[in-house]
Parts: sequence; C-alpha cells; structure tokens
Amino acid sequence: MVSPKSGASALEALVALCKAHGYVYAVETAGATVYNFGSLGAELRRNLQAEWWQSMVTTQDNVFGIENAICQSSPTQDAHRPSNEAVEEAMQTGYYHCPQSLQHGVLSHYHSSLQLLNNKLPFGLAEMGRCFPRTAAEEERFLYSAREMTAMSMLFFVPPKKSGVWFDLYQRQRMQWWRKFASSPSSFSVVDTSDADNTYPMVNIQFAFPWGVDTVERIALRDDSDLLDLERKTGMSCQGKDGRKTVVPHVVEMETYLEWACLAYLLDGLTEVKRTETVQKILRLHCRLAPYKVAVLPGRGTESQLREITDYIARDLRTAGIPCWYSADPQCSNEQQYTWYDEMGVPFSVAVNENTIKTGITLVRNRDTTIKEQVHISQLQLMLLRYMQAY
Amino acid sequence: MVSPKSGASALEALVALCKAHGYVYAVETAGATVYNFGSLGAELRRNLQAEWWQSMVTTQDNVFGIENAICQSSPTQDAHRPSNEAVEEAMQTGYYHCPQSLQHGVLSHYHSSLQLLNNKLPFGLAEMGRCFPRTAAEEERFLYSAREMTAMSMLFFVPPKKSGVWFDLYQRQRMQWWRKFASSPSSFSVVDTSDADNTYPMVNIQFAFPWGVDTVERIALRDDSDLLDLERKTGMSCQGKDGRKTVVPHVVEMETYLEWACLAYLLDGLTEVKRTETVQKILRLHCRLAPYKVAVLPGRGTESQLREITDYIARDLRTAGIPCWYSADPQCSNEQQYTWYDEMGVPFSVAVNENTIKTGITLVRNRDTTIKEQVHISQLQLMLLRYMQAY
Repeated sequence: MVSPKSGASALEALVALCKAHGYVYAVETAGATVYNFGSLGAELRRNLQAEWWQSMVTTQDNVFGIENAICQSSPTQDAHRPSNEAVEEAMQTGYYHCPQSLQHGVLSHYHSSLQLLNNKLPFGLAEMGRCFPRTAAEEERFLYSAREMTAMSMLFFVPPKKSGVWFDLYQRQRMQWWRKFASSPSSFSVVDTSDADNTYPMVNIQFAFPWGVDTVERIALRDDSDLLDLERKTGMSCQGKDGRKTVVPHVVEMETYLEWACLAYLLDGLTEVKRTETVQKILRLHCRLAPYKVAVLPGRGTESQLREITDYIARDLRTAGIPCWYSADPQCSNEQQYTWYDEMGVPFSVAVNENTIKTGITLVRNRDTTIKEQVHISQLQLMLLRYMQAY
Repeated sequence: MVSPKSGASALEALVALCKAHGYVYAVETAGATVYNFGSLGAELRRNLQAEWWQSMVTTQDNVFGIENAICQSSPTQDAHRPSNEAVEEAMQTGYYHCPQSLQHGVLSHYHSSLQLLNNKLPFGLAEMGRCFPRTAAEEERFLYSAREMTAMSMLFFVPPKKSGVWFDLYQRQRMQWWRKFASSPSSFSVVDTSDADNTYPMVNIQFAFPWGVDTVERIALRDDSDLLDLERKTGMSCQGKDGRKTVVPHVVEMETYLEWACLAYLLDGLTEVKRTETVQKILRLHCRLAPYKVAVLPGRGTESQLREITDYIARDLRTAGIPCWYSADPQCSNEQQYTWYDEMGVPFSVAVNENTIKTGITLVRNRDTTIKEQVHISQLQLMLLRYMQAY
C-alpha cells in the first residue's frame, strides 16, 4: 500500500515517462488533459491482448474465440439492420456498457458452439470487445479517463458437479498469468469477494496501484440461471453432455480490462535504480509485452561502413519478426542512447563499433542487468529469438 | 468473370459451408437473414489482421501502429470527455464512417510520431479500426450486411521527390501480399483508377468475386494538402527532414477492409474436386489464415490407449501454440472425418491406429494433396511447425 502522496508522484513519474517515449500523448483541452495511447502504448496493448488470447484460447481445450459486431442484432430484435437510433440506444443502455452479467452477445454463440463440439461439456467462449464504463469511479484515473475500455472476457461452461474444480483451476491459472509478466509478482494478489447479493462465489485479482490495492480481474462461479433464462427466451435447450448425463452447465466467468492491465504493467515496470551516481528510470517491461524487443545503435560519426552494418542488422532482425527500434542518425553517445532505451523499456540493445567491421562482433546489452555480451552478427537473430522465448 | 447465375450459386455454396463449419451463423429475423461471424470466422479475421500487421508494421522501417479510441476527442474539441450526444454525432457524421480522406484520428498522431524519429522522413502510421460503410452499395452483400466494418489503413509520409518510387513499391508489395495467401493468385489484379476529381493517382487491387471483379484495396498517392490543412488548424509545422532539406511530405495512402479480405479468401479457397466418385468441397485456406492448422483424429472405438495417445498429441501441439481441432469422441470413420476437416479448411490431420501403440508412428494427412505421411509422435510438433512456416 502506498500513501496518497507517493501514489500521486508515482503516477506523475509514469505520465512523464509515457509522454516522452510515445506510450501516451496528451491532448490539452479547455478544462483538462486527456491521454490517448501513442504508438508504443498501442503496441503494448496489442501484445497484452495477444498474450491473453494465447493463454485463454489457443492453448486451451475447446475454447472458442468469438467476435460480436458492435451493433449486433439480438435474437429477439427483428430489424434487418439496426438503425442509427438502435445503435445509439445500444450505446446508452445495454451491450455497449461494461457488462455486469453474461453478455447476450456471447450467449448468442452458445448453441452453435455447443453443436460444433457434439454437445460435449466443458467448453468456453472468449471475447474481446470495446465497452464503456458504467460508474464514475471507473472513469476517474489516468488512462481510465477514456470513456472507452476493452473488455477481455471468457465464459467457461462446466458440468455443475465439477464447477468448483474448474473455478479453482482458473483462479490459479489467471493468477499465474498476471504474475508471469510482472517485474514484482508480489504486487498481484487474490482475494475472495462476492457479488452484491452474495449469491455466488467470486474472487478478485488485485494489483497494488499507487492509490491503493485495486481490482484488475474478476472471476465468478455462476449457476445455471442465465442459461435457463436463455432457454426460456429462445426455446432451445441449453443442455450439454457430461459423460452420459445431460445437464445445464454452470459458468466460470472471467473478466478483465485491457486498460487496467496496461496501467498495472507500466506501473509495475517503472523502477528507479542508482547507476553511475545518478538515479536512472528503467521501464522493466516483460520482453513479451515490450513494444520493441531490441534497439540497434548506429554508432556516432559518419562512418559509412558502420552505417551499412547497422542497416543490415535492423533489416535482418525485422525480417525475423523481431520488432526493432532503429533510428539511423545518432544525436548522442551510446551511453545516452542506452539510458533512453532503458526508459523506453527496450529489453536488448545492439551496438557496433570499429571492431565490428573487422570481426563481425557486436555488443548486445541487457536492459535489466546492463551486462554486455559479444555476439557475432550472424548469431544475432537466433540469439535474440532464444532470449525472447526464454524470458 | 462469373455469370450472375453461377455467381449466386457460388455464394450459396459458400454460405452453406460457412454455416456448417462455424465460420458464420445466421440470425433469422422478421424480414431477412443476417450473418454474424462464428468462432472459426472470428479466428480467420484475427489471422488476417495479424498478417496485415506483420507485413505493414512489424517488418517495416519506421512504421508505427496506432490506435484511436472510438470516441476520441479531436484536437479542436474542448470537452474533457465526449458526451453521449458527441458519440452519437461522431457515429453519424465523421470518424465513425469509413474515411474518404485522411482521418483526423491518424493525423492526431502525426507530430508525436515525427518527433520520435527526429523529424526524419519517410515514416508511416498504420491503424485498424471499426467503421461504418457510407454507401448502400457497400452494405448489400453477404457478410457485408453488417453495418460495421474493420478498416485497415496505412498512411506513409514521403518526401515529394521520391513519392512516385514509394507509390510503385507499395503497389507491388500489397499485390504480393494479396496473392501470397490465395489459392488462385490470378484472381487478384490491379487497375489504375483515380478519385472522382481526378486530382491524384490511385490504383485498386481487385478480386474476381462471383458477382464480378470488385475492389478489395485502394492505394492512392496524395499530395501535401491534408498536411497543409493540419498546419493551419494546429499551428504546428508538419515539415520533416529529407536528408538536409526540410519538406512537407506527400502521402501514400493504403486502405482495405477486413470483411472484404475474409470474403475474398473464403471464395478463393472454396473448390470442388472429384474424389472417389463423389464431388467433394474443400476449403483451401492458406495455412497462415486457417483457424485450425491441424485436426487430431481420435480413431474409432473405445480403446483407452488410443485415446491417451490422441489426448497427448492434442496437448502437445497446443502447447507449441499450434491451433488444434480435437473432439475426443469420434462419431464416424476416419474418411468421413477427413471430408469434414477438408470442408472446414484444416490443412493437416493426424490419425493414430493400432500400430501407433507399438511404434509411435502416426499418419499425417495433407488437405490439398491427400497424401498421408508416417511421422513419429516425437516429431509431430517440429514437423508441423516447419510445414506451417514453409507453407
């Protein structure tokens, strides 16, 4: 827990760094400052989305990723195509708001997905989608200020008898996921809670934000009431097979917001260390989340041979799909560039020097350890790919 | 070019197949049928998005991927946070519509991005975002019927002197991209066109849809007028450096819609072949686009040992990040399952049999050639990863 004062300064420090390095940019308006995601912030978002998807869908048994149109017509709606008024209404009332219960958008995929699996339980439906926070409290903070948020949610449909086992398993799995990318894993914790009416078990995964511990993900174990409701509305059975029995499943519901995750990992990553008598800021973003994995340092001066080598390295790494920061014209010394890339959160840097022309040896520097390693140009791609996997 | 009649039947055949295999699902309403993307369709969309991003951003020099909030405030707007009315107005008037000119959303990233690169040209801004088609013609067709589309666009800012070279280069590159994933690359073509007022060069990339040749991507070479306009509005210089000169750049503008791309590749992939005296449908989706890369066949019967092996294989492949279809309880013969997965567009299948228990040898079948290859379980992961890369 951080005191409000140090909390405010932690946020200020993060805002300053995020503005300087393209994670956010400020739009000054009449009464206030609004922050939008800059190009590096957008890449961080995408990396987080991809990791969530990989963890929740691609590597899981029987989980489908679905997509709903923003103005999706509900099963009971009879217009061919929603009118502008319907879109507007949706934004103000239902689908557009961050959901407090199972989304009709997700449930509209229930029957077709169950059918694809020969009615076998368990299975899951995962979705990412834009929505708008409902409460003022959710709108208040830096990067929360946008009215728009990205929900990442999954409904996992399980036989009632095994629901507790799946609930426990997903709690552990989600907690591992959050900690996996953290510089300080202990900043994440899990607490039992419950919904307002105390009707079903619920846990929150929390992060130690500067303003105090706050929720980043909610996991609930819901009974069959939403599906029974769907049965009544559609007239179609929601029963699935659990071995030889037929049951209406219970639901493990997980939900987090991309904006919460981005902010948590930015705060988690921002650290100050004392290096060579000055205090330096480092953004210790996990390699899987970092917008750029490597920075290529052009070396000072106008040596055309050095320039050719760094051009080659940048092209070589990009071809291998390694996002690479390379600005061919150096304005400052290698040490100044290292400081810059540490703040930017780039995990590795590659520098060339006079010696590289003769031997092909480059210097690969690690952001977190500052250790420099000699690596031959021909080995750079492979070595960085390995480091990225092992991170 | 296809006659209207065969065109209609080609679409009907595609709709039937897409419904049967979870690419789309139909919502029957009072007056008409609306199609939404099912779980496999959603995965195809995501794969296409990822390929576009990889090609346009990750592997390119100095291209930033940006994101705009749906209700992003424009630089001239002075409300801290857009009201419901502002959101609604945006949807009806400006940003929400598919753009006919450079988006203010993209241009709001112009100055901060140029600054990150020390004002050096060229550089690009890429964006994916939801929008709504403006004209009735764009709304009419299957899968176009949603009012919502996903634009994938890039603005590449170049020194005026070199604009023609970049325009040509991107035409070639985009054409290669479209053809790379096609089963029949010749279905894609490029034609010179121009905007309504004939003010700047423009080309269209086209695809032979069943209803005739139609545009899937527009590439235009625009002058500096939008940036000069931005200079006037913001009072900030838009000049960048071209070597030692300072210039207001021209813009290569590329734009396509994810829904066009999905439909084109589904139509391109759907083929009929004569196999064992029956005509079989095959969805020849490129391996990079296919929602599932491999299907694991459980083998008939209740042999617990066979079941254990297929369970292991599915888990092993998923761990390696290979999207894998596995429904543990077979309802039908291997041949029937192959037919099913061919229609579903799964490039590879893995089957086990009695022999596998003794030798560990499985049968890997290729969707397009139907050739079966003997592969040891321990080699499956590696072999499929290699096939996927080489595809």
